[in-house]
Amino acid sequence: MPNELPASIREAGDLLRAGRLTSLDLVEACLARIERFDARVRAWVMVDADGARAQARRLDDELHKGGPRHPLHGIPIGIKDIIDVEGWPTLAGSRLRAGHVARQDAPIVRRLRAAGAVILGKTVTTEFASFDPPPTRNPWNLERTPAGSSSGSAAAVALGMCMAAVGSQTGGSITRPAGYCGVAGCKPTYGLVSLSGIVSLAYHMDHPGPIAPRVSDLAIMLASMAGYEPLDPFSVDVPVPDYAAGLERAAPPRLGLMTGFFRDAASDEVRAVVAASIERLRAAGATVEEMPPPASFADVIVNHRRIMGIEAAEYHRANFPARRSEYGPQLASLLDEALATSVLDYAAALKHKEQFTRDLEALAGRYDALVTPATTTTAPTPETTGDPRFNAPFSYANCPTVCFPCGVARDGLPVGLQLIGRHWGEGPLLAVSAWCERAIGFAARPPLVAECDT
Amino acid sequence: MPNELPASIREAGDLLRAGRLTSLDLVEACLARIERFDARVRAWVMVDADGARAQARRLDDELHKGGPRHPLHGIPIGIKDIIDVEGWPTLAGSRLRAGHVARQDAPIVRRLRAAGAVILGKTVTTEFASFDPPPTRNPWNLERTPAGSSSGSAAAVALGMCMAAVGSQTGGSITRPAGYCGVAGCKPTYGLVSLSGIVSLAYHMDHPGPIAPRVSDLAIMLASMAGYEPLDPFSVDVPVPDYAAGLERAAPPRLGLMTGFFRDAASDEVRAVVAASIERLRAAGATVEEMPPPASFADVIVNHRRIMGIEAAEYHRANFPARRSEYGPQLASLLDEALATSVLDYAAALKHKEQFTRDLEALAGRYDALVTPATTTTAPTPETTGDPRFNAPFSYANCPTVCFPCGVARDGLPVGLQLIGRHWGEGPLLAVSAWCERAIGFAARPPLVAECDT
Repeated sequence: MPNELPASIREAGDLLRAGRLTSLDLVEACLARIERFDARVRAWVMVDADGARAQARRLDDELHKGGPRHPLHGIPIGIKDIIDVEGWPTLAGSRLRAGHVARQDAPIVRRLRAAGAVILGKTVTTEFASFDPPPTRNPWNLERTPAGSSSGSAAAVALGMCMAAVGSQTGGSITRPAGYCGVAGCKPTYGLVSLSGIVSLAYHMDHPGPIAPRVSDLAIMLASMAGYEPLDPFSVDVPVPDYAAGLERAAPPRLGLMTGFFRDAASDEVRAVVAASIERLRAAGATVEEMPPPASFADVIVNHRRIMGIEAAEYHRANFPARRSEYGPQLASLLDEALATSVLDYAAALKHKEQFTRDLEALAGRYDALVTPATTTTAPTPETTGDPRFNAPFSYANCPTVCFPCGVARDGLPVGLQLIGRHWGEGPLLAVSAWCERAIGFAARPPLVAECDT
Repeated sequence: MPNELPASIREAGDLLRAGRLTSLDLVEACLARIERFDARVRAWVMVDADGARAQARRLDDELHKGGPRHPLHGIPIGIKDIIDVEGWPTLAGSRLRAGHVARQDAPIVRRLRAAGAVILGKTVTTEFASFDPPPTRNPWNLERTPAGSSSGSAAAVALGMCMAAVGSQTGGSITRPAGYCGVAGCKPTYGLVSLSGIVSLAYHMDHPGPIAPRVSDLAIMLASMAGYEPLDPFSVDVPVPDYAAGLERAAPPRLGLMTGFFRDAASDEVRAVVAASIERLRAAGATVEEMPPPASFADVIVNHRRIMGIEAAEYHRANFPARRSEYGPQLASLLDEALATSVLDYAAALKHKEQFTRDLEALAGRYDALVTPATTTTAPTPETTGDPRFNAPFSYANCPTVCFPCGVARDGLPVGLQLIGRHWGEGPLLAVSAWCERAIGFAARPPLVAECDT
């Protein structure tokens, strides 16, 4: 059954435990899709087919003898190529990293392996998780971008080249690719998932998180990725609940639909699909109240870029501007801008970040979740990776977000909803998101996938 | 009994509740001491004698009718003059603040008032809580500095001009004055005590905290000052235990005596007094293990100054350098240096701050408390406010510290011990400190105070 793939990790797990499917079957199905699509989509930097088969065989054997380790047991996943996997290069989309080989797994990879995930390969990232367009194309339309920076992770999941992938977000790099590619994504609270062994873009706002077909898959992935790492100074010691176990939520949620910029900057297509989704949520019993972002939102976009640029420039100071020509034009321009920024503006931006975070937290506390479109538009043509401005505010505020597809726009491209929660509220946020995903009842598949089913 | 003052807030509270003393008696005793000493010591910017008497009468009446609000009921305290008290100027030691009048109490003043404290007046701070020497003199020797920046708070408490005072620390501005003046001080975990309504020096490291005669007084003051303030973006929502109730600690503590810089930079006098105190602690049953600071300590002093300078420069950007001549030379020099600092160095310093914090936290977790001398030397002559390098690392790490006097050096000046705990560990840290204070059994009084008892 190499060409069939269960629709979710949970479904795959049921089949694996029932002996109706093996991890090797899943790996072969993913490899077949990579074989079939990746020359066109270019989601992968490297695929370790033989290694994945060997991992799958061991995990099948272990499952047979002692049962599953975790709901991820035997599930093939991709790892964004800014994250260290032992023995593999971490190229981060940059020629500056040529020759790099990771000495050990990043803690999140170690955690995923320990949960029984099969590490299939590395997915394409934009250069240093920034904005210069990657080679990857959108599975829904090869003339469109999958977005960045977790370009390969989102495209691979959308095509069933893996059942989930690790991405990361500093601006909009999980939610935007997930939105453009019609899959789900979660950017957790800053500090929940360790940054160790991951190439940094901006250390105050870097958030690794999962990309997967469905919200329930995000819960399974996140429960495995999250957890305190004492050697990572940014990791926070908080309890990690079993997010997947908490997904069944009885009561319809109370949602705060953000207006102002989050309505005005959306394209007509996106607005129409989101409006229809909100109607479905209301029809299913949700309370949806419209409310503007906090007043401090006004300075968020400028300050977010300022902090991102300066922290990136600090990370790259050994190479930039000395090796300027080896940087992509957009990243180079961000770094140039940063180097010309006053230290006082950075101090003020970090202070403002705390103010906005507090203001957003107060607003979020009035609802089960805040809601916005996942992206301003559907996927644009691939000269850019698209507009992160619906996502960057929540990277800036370090709060958790979940997105999932809610419809297809008139242009045939998927549209997503973004739900925003309070710090450390991943559990309730995933539960509300799963409720909304069920209420909207949209199951998105890129047209390309149909090739596999014939 | 205007010239007698109980030795601690707890003792005063017992007498007040027993009807053997009134709040007005306490206020009169404090006012008498201010009258007697302040022309020489200059601890106060302003004293509201009539207002304090009126507060005391109301509180006496209330106590008589309904009992005490809190252990602080009727206790006269001083407020460092960077903290807003409604209707009073907050001059922050600077001519730039001339004409300022606070429209409302800072939240910590509001909390102290609600607990029944009598707000006696404003205590002298160095200019903008920085390093330029204040007019205040050390109560133990008028030719010495009381240190800064909480100069007036420490000197006033040492002379019984008030029973406790609010100070604040960004470098060493609570522990150093408390140490030089022979009183106790607590710098709580960053975010435990609100920064709202307080003139900022460096927002990542500003910590308001109490200065008082004894550790038990710190516990009573802190329990009233601490608490979440949703409008303050730096305030953290954590439980505030009744620190005073937890002070009785049965078991002798396990202490980590910091070596390296914290031994080498101490003067012979300080080292001798601290060594004798450690012997007393050991004799009382404490385990004292020597250990060096973490490797990341090496960059702390430079980075601390960098962050402090830049954040101060950001706070002062409307006035500095435009009104440079109105700034003291030391603060002006700090700001000049900050304005010449690379934004990348600030980003790197903030990252290092997180690393050192984590490293120190790990070390502190191995003991009931870490221990250092409170100051490098006893109080120097008043051209400087002294050396904050034994304190700044813990402001940098945002962790709680408690200091209390442990002896008098050969030069006749007091020496203190500084105990350091884990984040949010004020409760256990105060309990260990109270145990050590009892075990050492030192009761310090400046010679000047003897004038009152004759």
